[in-house]
Amino acid sequence: MDAHEFKEAATATIDDIIAYFETLPARDVVSRVEPGYLRKLLPSSAPQEGEAWPAIQRDVEAKIMPGITHWSHPGFHAFFPCATSYPSILGELYSAALSGACFNWICSPAVTELETVVLDWLAQMLGLPPCFLSTGPTAGGGVIQGSASEAVLTAMVAARDKYLRETVPAHLEGDAREDAVMVKRSKMVALATTLTHSSAKKAALILGCRFRAIKVREEDGYALTKVGLTAALDECRAQGLEPFFLAVTLGTTDVCSVDDFAGVAEALDEHAPAGQPGEVWVHVDAAYAGAALVCPEVQESTRIELISRFHSFDMNMHKWLLVNFDASCFFVRDREWLVQALSVNQAVYGNKASDGGLVTDYREWQIPLGRRFRSLKIWFVLRSYGVKGLQEYIRRTIKMGEEFAEALRVRSDLFEIVTGPSFALTVFRLAAKSESASLEERNALTRNLYEKVNATGKIWLTSTELDGRFAIRLMTGVRTTEGEHIQTAVKTLVEVAEEVMRG
Amino acid sequence: MDAHEFKEAATATIDDIIAYFETLPARDVVSRVEPGYLRKLLPSSAPQEGEAWPAIQRDVEAKIMPGITHWSHPGFHAFFPCATSYPSILGELYSAALSGACFNWICSPAVTELETVVLDWLAQMLGLPPCFLSTGPTAGGGVIQGSASEAVLTAMVAARDKYLRETVPAHLEGDAREDAVMVKRSKMVALATTLTHSSAKKAALILGCRFRAIKVREEDGYALTKVGLTAALDECRAQGLEPFFLAVTLGTTDVCSVDDFAGVAEALDEHAPAGQPGEVWVHVDAAYAGAALVCPEVQESTRIELISRFHSFDMNMHKWLLVNFDASCFFVRDREWLVQALSVNQAVYGNKASDGGLVTDYREWQIPLGRRFRSLKIWFVLRSYGVKGLQEYIRRTIKMGEEFAEALRVRSDLFEIVTGPSFALTVFRLAAKSESASLEERNALTRNLYEKVNATGKIWLTSTELDGRFAIRLMTGVRTTEGEHIQTAVKTLVEVAEEVMRG
Repeated sequence: MDAHEFKEAATATIDDIIAYFETLPARDVVSRVEPGYLRKLLPSSAPQEGEAWPAIQRDVEAKIMPGITHWSHPGFHAFFPCATSYPSILGELYSAALSGACFNWICSPAVTELETVVLDWLAQMLGLPPCFLSTGPTAGGGVIQGSASEAVLTAMVAARDKYLRETVPAHLEGDAREDAVMVKRSKMVALATTLTHSSAKKAALILGCRFRAIKVREEDGYALTKVGLTAALDECRAQGLEPFFLAVTLGTTDVCSVDDFAGVAEALDEHAPAGQPGEVWVHVDAAYAGAALVCPEVQESTRIELISRFHSFDMNMHKWLLVNFDASCFFVRDREWLVQALSVNQAVYGNKASDGGLVTDYREWQIPLGRRFRSLKIWFVLRSYGVKGLQEYIRRTIKMGEEFAEALRVRSDLFEIVTGPSFALTVFRLAAKSESASLEERNALTRNLYEKVNATGKIWLTSTELDGRFAIRLMTGVRTTEGEHIQTAVKTLVEVAEEVMRG
Repeated sequence: MDAHEFKEAATATIDDIIAYFETLPARDVVSRVEPGYLRKLLPSSAPQEGEAWPAIQRDVEAKIMPGITHWSHPGFHAFFPCATSYPSILGELYSAALSGACFNWICSPAVTELETVVLDWLAQMLGLPPCFLSTGPTAGGGVIQGSASEAVLTAMVAARDKYLRETVPAHLEGDAREDAVMVKRSKMVALATTLTHSSAKKAALILGCRFRAIKVREEDGYALTKVGLTAALDECRAQGLEPFFLAVTLGTTDVCSVDDFAGVAEALDEHAPAGQPGEVWVHVDAAYAGAALVCPEVQESTRIELISRFHSFDMNMHKWLLVNFDASCFFVRDREWLVQALSVNQAVYGNKASDGGLVTDYREWQIPLGRRFRSLKIWFVLRSYGVKGLQEYIRRTIKMGEEFAEALRVRSDLFEIVTGPSFALTVFRLAAKSESASLEERNALTRNLYEKVNATGKIWLTSTELDGRFAIRLMTGVRTTEGEHIQTAVKTLVEVAEEVMRG
C-alpha cells in the first residue's frame, strides 16, 4: 500500500467511521452472532498474495460488524462505559504512525514528557492531593497503564517490595536474604473487600500471595469501614499473617459504593502508623468513578484530599472520560517505590540520558518494557473538550442516572432500588409481588425481566448478585446516551416488568 | 468535535502522516531535545475551555515532533525494529472507533473470533507445530498480548500454577493447602540464561520466585546447551530447589543467538520426563526473530518443529512483521493451563455464552481484564502483504544484514565481527589497534566510535557488552531501510573508525 493508496483507504475509513456513529442507534446493542460465526466466513489460512484494500474494507462491514457489540451505542447500559471520541481517535491515528517501543526517555522524549505533563494536568483536574503530582513534594507522579488490572498488580508488586525492604533485616545478604524473604512472603497477605474488583484478587494470585476479602455490608452502603477493617487486621494478626496491601475503592463495579477513607485511615493508624516501616500500602481503585472527580462537588463529597494518607491511585480515562481503550492513569505518592521494585537492567538499554539520572524511564514504572504513545489521545481529549466540557459531560450523565432512578421510584409497584443512583449507576430488582414472596421467587422474576429486556436488542443491561439477591445494573454514562434513550429504557423496563409481574 | 470537524481533522491528519513518512529520511533519527523540553512549551494545566483542532494539530509538528525518535527512519539500526505500516494504521483507526473492553466473547464476538482465526493463520505461517493452533490436537491456541514481557509473565504464572497442581498433595485443602503451597513456592526456581531478555527476570521478580540465569558461552554461539542446562538442573537439585520454568530464546536481544532446542529437550527429559507431573515448563521467547519463521528456510534452519516438546511460544508482530505496537502473539499448547491459572470470576461478568462454555473469554488467557481490538491490524497486514509479501520483506532485510557484515569483513583492518549476521543483526567492535591492545583500550575506542557515529544523527546504533567486551549492534530490519542506507551506514562507520584508529 503506497501513500496514494493509503490516502484513499484512510479517507474511506474516515467516512466509514462517521457513518458508523451516525447509524449506531439503529443497530442492536449486542451482537447476535452464534459462537464460531466468523471462522465460517474466513479462509482457513492467510492469503499468499497481497489483496487490494477495497476487498478488505468491504469485509469489515460484511463480516466484522455483525460480530460487534456496540459500546458507544446510546442503549449501552451494561458494565461501565468504554469510551471513544473523535479527538481520541485522532490520537490513536498519530500514535500508530509514530509507533515505537518507547521504554526509555531517549526512545522518544516526547512520549515520556507528554505523559508526565498530561498526567499532572489530570491529577490537578481530579483534585488529587499534590503528593501525586510529578512536581509535588514527595516525588510522586503518574504513568499510563493498559488497564486498572495492570495498575493494581503494579501497586501490589511495589507494595510487597517496600514491605520486604522495611521488614527483612538489612544485614542479611545473598542466599540468607533470599531464604528470609521467602519466609516473610509466606506470611504476607493482601486485603480487599467482597466488592473490590476481581483484579485485586488476580494480582494476589499472580504474586502468589495470600488474599483476604473483607465482607462489606448493605447497612454500611457496601463500603469498607473502620470497624470492618480493624476486625480483619486483628484476625490476620491472630493468625500470624502480615497485611502489606489494601485495595480500597471509589466506585465499586457492582454498586459504585465508596469505601470510608477516613475510617480506613484510622484503622490503619492503629495497626501500623503511616510512614513507619511495615505500614500497609493502600491502593485506591477509582477505575470508573474517578472520572467524576473532574467535578469539584464530587471531590468534596468523596473527600478526595484524604487519599494523601494512601499510596497509589488509579482511574481509567477509557471508561468515563472519553479516551478510547487503553488509558489507565496510575499515580503514586513516591515514584521511587516503583523504580525500586520494577527496575531490571540490560546492557542494551543503557544510554547517557538514563545513566545520567535526569530523565524518567517509564519502563521502570510498569510491568512491560515497551509502550505506546498513549498520552497523545489524552492530550487531544483534554484540549478539545477542556475541563468545562468534561465536567458538563459527567454532570449530564449523572443527572440522567438520577432521572432514571426517579422513574423507577415512581413505579415502586414494579421496581425496588437496591443501591444508587451512584455515579450514574442504579442497581434495582423487581418489586415483591406479595409480602410472602421468597428470595428465590424474586430472583427468578428479576432474572426473567433482565433476560427479556436484553432480548429486545435495544438496550443492554448487566446483572449482579448482592447478599443472594439477583439485581440489575443500569449505567447511564455512555457519551451518546441522551434523555430520550433513558425514557426508552424506562418504557421498555416498565412494559416488560408489567408482563413479568402478570406472570 | 462533530462529524464534519472530524472529517476535516482526520483528513488533515492523514496528509500529515503521509508527509511524515515522506520527509522521514531528512530528519535526524534520534531526538536531540534536552530533558524537560516539553514542559516549558506547554501550559501548566489543562485548558478550561475546549480548543479548536487546528491549534492542537499545529502543536503536533511544533512541539511533539522535535521530541520524537523515529523508529521507522531508514537509519534506525538500534535495538530491534518497532514496526508500523499503512494497513496497520488503518487497523488502529477502526479499532479506536470500535473501542470496547472486550474481555468476554459477548463483549464483541468478532474481537475474540478474529483473534483466534488470525493467530491460527500466523501459527501456520510460522510453521509452529499444530499443537499451538486452536484447532490442533491439544486444545492449544494463540492470544494477543501487549508485549513479550506480558507473555513471559503470563507463561510463568501458568507454569507455577501447573507445577503446584501437580506436586502439592491433592488431598490438602483450605489453610493446610495454602501453607503447603507457600512452602513449595519457596523452593521453586525459574531458569533462563545470561542472554535471555530481562523480561524473564522481571517476571520472576513479579511472581516473587527464585531466578537463576545460566551462563551461556561464546564457544557455544551464546546458546543454551544440553551440558549447560544439565549442570544448572543438577545444581538446583543439590540446593534443594525445584526448577519449574525455563525461558529459551530464538534470537536473543544482544546477539540473536538461538538456544539449542534439541539439547534443551534432552536435558529436560533426563531431569523430569515430558508430560509427567513436575515437568519444567519451557517458554520460547522469539519476540524479534520469530518473525523470520514466515520463511520456510528459517523454519528448517531453526528446527522449529522441536518446540512441540515445549509449552508456550511468543513473537511480536510489532517488531519485524509490520504491525504497529502492540501485537505480541503468544501461543500455548494447552489453553486450559492459562484458564486454570488466570480465571477469576465476578458476578457482573456472568453471561449465557460464557456460562455455556462454548466460547473463548480471552480475559482468562491474560493478566488484564479489558482488551482492545488488536487482531484487526494483524488481519489487515496479513491480507495486504500476503504471505509472499512478508517473506520478501524479511528476506530483503536479512540480506541487507549480510551485505553489511560483508562490508565490515572487507575492512578487517577496522572492524571485528563479534557475532552474526544473524537475523539481520550484526554485532561488532573496532579491530585491535595492535596485538598488545588491552580490553579496556579496545572498549574505550569502540565506545568512542559508537558515540561519534550516533552523534552524526544520521543513523542510530545501540551497544551491548559480551564477556566484558563493549560491542556495537547494527540491525537492518526497518521497513524503510534500503541498500543505499546500508551503504551510508558503512561509509559513516568507516570514516569515523579511521578517525578513531588514527587517534
